[in-house]
Amino acid sequence: MAVLGPNRYGKAETRVVRVTRHGDAHRIKDLTVSTSLSGDMTEVHLSGDNSAVLPTDTQKNTVFAFAKKHGVGAIEDFALLLARHFADSQPAIHHARVAVEEHAWERNGAFGHSFVRSGREVRTCVAHYDGTRSWVVSGLRDLVVLNTTNSEFWGFAKDEYTTLPETRDRVLATAVDAAWRHADASQGASQDWDKAYENARGALLAAFADTYSLSLQQTLYAMGTRVLAECPGVCEVRLSLPNKHHFLVDLAPFGLDNDGEVFFAADRPYGLIEGTVLREDAPAAGPAWE
Amino acid sequence: MAVLGPNRYGKAETRVVRVTRHGDAHRIKDLTVSTSLSGDMTEVHLSGDNSAVLPTDTQKNTVFAFAKKHGVGAIEDFALLLARHFADSQPAIHHARVAVEEHAWERNGAFGHSFVRSGREVRTCVAHYDGTRSWVVSGLRDLVVLNTTNSEFWGFAKDEYTTLPETRDRVLATAVDAAWRHADASQGASQDWDKAYENARGALLAAFADTYSLSLQQTLYAMGTRVLAECPGVCEVRLSLPNKHHFLVDLAPFGLDNDGEVFFAADRPYGLIEGTVLREDAPAAGPAWE
Amino acid sequence: MAVLGPNRYGKAETRVVRVTRHGDAHRIKDLTVSTSLSGDMTEVHLSGDNSAVLPTDTQKNTVFAFAKKHGVGAIEDFALLLARHFADSQPAIHHARVAVEEHAWERNGAFGHSFVRSGREVRTCVAHYDGTRSWVVSGLRDLVVLNTTNSEFWGFAKDEYTTLPETRDRVLATAVDAAWRHADASQGASQDWDKAYENARGALLAAFADTYSLSLQQTLYAMGTRVLAECPGVCEVRLSLPNKHHFLVDLAPFGLDNDGEVFFAADRPYGLIEGTVLREDAPAAGPAWE
Amino acid sequence: MAVLGPNRYGKAETRVVRVTRHGDAHRIKDLTVSTSLSGDMTEVHLSGDNSAVLPTDTQKNTVFAFAKKHGVGAIEDFALLLARHFADSQPAIHHARVAVEEHAWERNGAFGHSFVRSGREVRTCVAHYDGTRSWVVSGLRDLVVLNTTNSEFWGFAKDEYTTLPETRDRVLATAVDAAWRHADASQGASQDWDKAYENARGALLAAFADTYSLSLQQTLYAMGTRVLAECPGVCEVRLSLPNKHHFLVDLAPFGLDNDGEVFFAADRPYGLIEGTVLREDAPAAGPAWE
Repeated sequence: MAVLGPNRYGKAETRVVRVTRHGDAHRIKDLTVSTSLSGDMTEVHLSGDNSAVLPTDTQKNTVFAFAKKHGVGAIEDFALLLARHFADSQPAIHHARVAVEEHAWERNGAFGHSFVRSGREVRTCVAHYDGTRSWVVSGLRDLVVLNTTNSEFWGFAKDEYTTLPETRDRVLATAVDAAWRHADASQGASQDWDKAYENARGALLAAFADTYSLSLQQTLYAMGTRVLAECPGVCEVRLSLPNKHHFLVDLAPFGLDNDGEVFFAADRPYGLIEGTVLREDAPAAGPAWE
Repeated sequence: MAVLGPNRYGKAETRVVRVTRHGDAHRIKDLTVSTSLSGDMTEVHLSGDNSAVLPTDTQKNTVFAFAKKHGVGAIEDFALLLARHFADSQPAIHHARVAVEEHAWERNGAFGHSFVRSGREVRTCVAHYDGTRSWVVSGLRDLVVLNTTNSEFWGFAKDEYTTLPETRDRVLATAVDAAWRHADASQGASQDWDKAYENARGALLAAFADTYSLSLQQTLYAMGTRVLAECPGVCEVRLSLPNKHHFLVDLAPFGLDNDGEVFFAADRPYGLIEGTVLREDAPAAGPAWE
Repeated sequence: MAVLGPNRYGKAETRVVRVTRHGDAHRIKDLTVSTSLSGDMTEVHLSGDNSAVLPTDTQKNTVFAFAKKHGVGAIEDFALLLARHFADSQPAIHHARVAVEEHAWERNGAFGHSFVRSGREVRTCVAHYDGTRSWVVSGLRDLVVLNTTNSEFWGFAKDEYTTLPETRDRVLATAVDAAWRHADASQGASQDWDKAYENARGALLAAFADTYSLSLQQTLYAMGTRVLAECPGVCEVRLSLPNKHHFLVDLAPFGLDNDGEVFFAADRPYGLIEGTVLREDAPAAGPAWE
Repeated sequence: MAVLGPNRYGKAETRVVRVTRHGDAHRIKDLTVSTSLSGDMTEVHLSGDNSAVLPTDTQKNTVFAFAKKHGVGAIEDFALLLARHFADSQPAIHHARVAVEEHAWERNGAFGHSFVRSGREVRTCVAHYDGTRSWVVSGLRDLVVLNTTNSEFWGFAKDEYTTLPETRDRVLATAVDAAWRHADASQGASQDWDKAYENARGALLAAFADTYSLSLQQTLYAMGTRVLAECPGVCEVRLSLPNKHHFLVDLAPFGLDNDGEVFFAADRPYGLIEGTVLREDAPAAGPAWE
């Protein structure tokens, strides 16, 4: 017989821009917010009785209203605020998950009211709240990095389908997709999330640059451990690193050598290296990664 | 102290097209294959020692070589074949995950050698193999469906941020993203995966159409239970249904009524309904959904 | 000194879905409509005086209102209706361009109210109207086709950078982007645009299939001439055909031959063949292609 | 009778990355190059005789070989170099068009070999060469800018479908797609294209910021004239500015005012403002914009 398993529902990708005006010097926060609620949802699935269902339209309205009432500081604080509101105010909602993406802008010259979208990575976070406890994962995606040297790949396993030559010098490039779990998210909103973000981002960039790499896995592990070293509140780091292959072009047919100078940047297929680095004493993750 | 947690690596999105020629009547299979391997990978992360690492380039080669040697039938069989090869032939590889997407083509007229890409949904599968056991999840994505009537939404929870009016007639549209777990994947490749696929697809479409819907959750549950009813080998169904909002346009300012005739198809935000339906006696999922 | 050159403005990508109910058998038309107006627009550019500017928001409203008032038949008729309205009703608007894309749906089983998005190509049209004359271009995009044989490529020019081997048998695949100009668009809306569309689409597909191809240019020309042959009202055809390369995989390192069986479908770069076929006596195109 | 009209063919989107090593301080140029050739192409269309056709594969090889032999400086120089090569070295090729996009990278910290992809706009150029004359258009796309104030929209034309209220303060945002034609491209490669690019980019940003805007058309014209003022060698500017609507959210139902603080960033539809600003004495454009 069929039974209902895990489920959740919400409003995905609400695009909210919050402007703050301090005299002529304005500030903008540009977010994409996705909310997901779960709880006493058996009836709506079985019979279509919506009495436990706070509409996704209401969730969207709440995002806009909270942006006004509370302002938008660090996205982690905004996500926690929303998660707590939904689970604390709706009797049938026992768990809220709020994901926020932040799109970066820079000032356009000296003008206080004019901005240019910065192309830097997207900053992300996911907050969970179950009526008692909170979990927060911060992260980033689309941080594209490339090393022109200090990367080798050799000594790998070989079988009858292996044709790849070994190399002692290659371009290493990836689009970093990283997330890090905060050990102490339940202790309230007193954290300096922005500072933690800059620390983690800096650690990822530095470790990518200064690790002499024998494999992308080694670089991944170095990036994860560096985040743990730089961010005391972080207990676990997850990384997904596509190997954005830059193939050395064979110019020999044209009488030219190519000593690491001309590369073809390929689209697909690509290597994909995924891994986790965590503290030995990391607390259980609970729903943090869901 | 930092330790290495779960990890895997592989080649993502190898695009392989396999042609079979039976006289003048050719056949094509058009796949995107992603392989992920895991096992004794501590050293490569810690020191960059690649001796346990079968290159992702080799994985790609294997996809091409197997397409030649074994042909491509049902994608589930091809995925299992690859997964077993990697985990059985490489001592350091203890687990293989192979995901395949199939892009549909139709014959172009009566010509045996000419094809038109069909726009129907993408068929998907993920196979896992750990050296002993297998797990198979089949599925589809981008199956876009719409009902012009037989959908209501009312009686929902309301709070101070609720402005949505109740409705007794609305357009219901979604892009079905569904996956179903086979209970008996370990019993070998004797299944008729293609028939199972058509059964599941037919069940999803029929349940979407003939469910008088009071909420998208109710429709989701009906779709999941229908798959279980039509596919005896399936023990669990997971559905992710974006509510592709079609808003009734207010034409009153122009002296026109709009009795379910003209809609604005919105992009973002969108409702997102996610849920699982499973048999009471479904075996444990193991790594099937990872 | 700076002067204002050609300009236009409008509302792009209004997504309108029109439902028609004939008892239980409903019908849907799913369009993306883009309008562009031009005329006495010097002042708005120079001083910001908007008195000649019908807001783009109004253009969007008009699309919705016209879908209700006039229904939606062939997209060419709907585009012409809108173009004439804007240029005839607004004194400052002297020229209107309306582009419409149609997304195809099929019935979901025998249900009169349930539909499945068909993956076939997007049907397109662009209509122009200048207060007196009309121009109509119909077309399609994303019609992906592939021939497994009957394609060669050899005898080409060679220089010091040429390494491509000649081939007497290759896969030929493309995503057809085609548009055809109607000679007689000014004569009113009496045309059967839907029939013309099916004729042109059929001609493109048939010519792609039954042309034994020595180059994609030859196939392009055959497709264009076939449309002219099948569609008496069409005077010019423009085609843009990406050569979606399917490279024969070298399986020799694995002791396997590959006689046109296993291909790698590449993303980038791709060949791009663009060309025009027209009747000798085609009338001047005027603004039709703008 | 059918005749062949305008046509061209080439290799689109060759992704080339060029590394230059000056000791430990490396430099990278990351380009997407598209070449299009035309000339004596009647036979290949009519009979498939390829003797005039330099393969698109050869064009790709040439891009890579030239990146090695000549290095990559300003993209305009690289485009002209390629265009001249094709039209001067192949008797059947009478015209070459080369389009280049440049993706920006920044140094990753103080490391000479490590880079971060900058998210700033994509720099573009298109060069034409017909065996004698050259034409160069430079530009950019995806420069996303936003003003939080100093934008009004009122006094517009109204008809029966107009519902938009007038506003004296709105957010104005757009993704600038701009291209500017150089008057003197035939005079050889002695220009400082990089400096011209920074001048034009700076002019666009400054004009967007310091124009008090009564309509996006006015802003467009100001941006175009500013480029002409700052760049003496430029004779024509074309701009395509989507109006990325930021709608003020109605918070009144929640007892909140919203004085320019909370906005919904909409996707579609969007206004689209296109226009040209040129010098009175601009020379004829010839094929520059094709």
